[in-house]
Amino acid sequence: MTDAINLAEKLSTFDERWSPRTVSLFNGHDVMVVKVEGEFTWHSHPDTDDFFLVLKGEIDIELRDRTITLKAGEIYVIPKGVEHRPVARQEAHLLLIEPTGTPNTGDPETAVARKVI
Amino acid sequence: MTDAINLAEKLSTFDERWSPRTVSLFNGHDVMVVKVEGEFTWHSHPDTDDFFLVLKGEIDIELRDRTITLKAGEIYVIPKGVEHRPVARQEAHLLLIEPTGTPNTGDPETAVARKVI
Repeated sequence: MTDAINLAEKLSTFDERWSPRTVSLFNGHDVMVVKVEGEFTWHSHPDTDDFFLVLKGEIDIELRDRTITLKAGEIYVIPKGVEHRPVARQEAHLLLIEPTGTPNTGDPETAVARKVI
Repeated sequence: MTDAINLAEKLSTFDERWSPRTVSLFNGHDVMVVKVEGEFTWHSHPDTDDFFLVLKGEIDIELRDRTITLKAGEIYVIPKGVEHRPVARQEAHLLLIEPTGTPNTGDPETAVARKVI
């Protein structure tokens, strides 16, 4: 078993945007931290909900019919199958939880490789 | 679909200790906030890992062979079946994730009823 996992410390070890790092496992899911900035691609996950917690900064989660603004200390769960596009006007830090193996773009072809730190 | 869920706002709506409130659902799990203070009971969950994120304050998670101290911004996942006892010397606020229906004490007889806010 590991020690306590300090999220800010894990985030300080990398600078890449949109490249989640797995920091722990939970019931078949990867618990990840990620730095985001700019616009991601529109995508959906047919088989899983998508858990977002903003740790620092602010993001918009664009849905096809509206936009959810998420600030630090706020969470949002995108139901499976719902198209969304995360957008960060400035650097923001997130905690994400997804089943291990879920492609971050919803598509294995364009997904970044899983990275564990 | 809901709006952004502000965790501090949800926590401000109650004062009970050791009585988690469900604020969202995620892949068959309850996402919960809880205020803790003092010692909880020793317990384990035979069928699920136990996800802890400290939002405010500090807790000790006592395991049978050692103690994990968790501060704000730190996470820890107790693997399923592992006995543990959370202890908070002062009031602390946590985000917990467990499969919907999991008794908080590991035992349906002593568990608090599920509360959704």
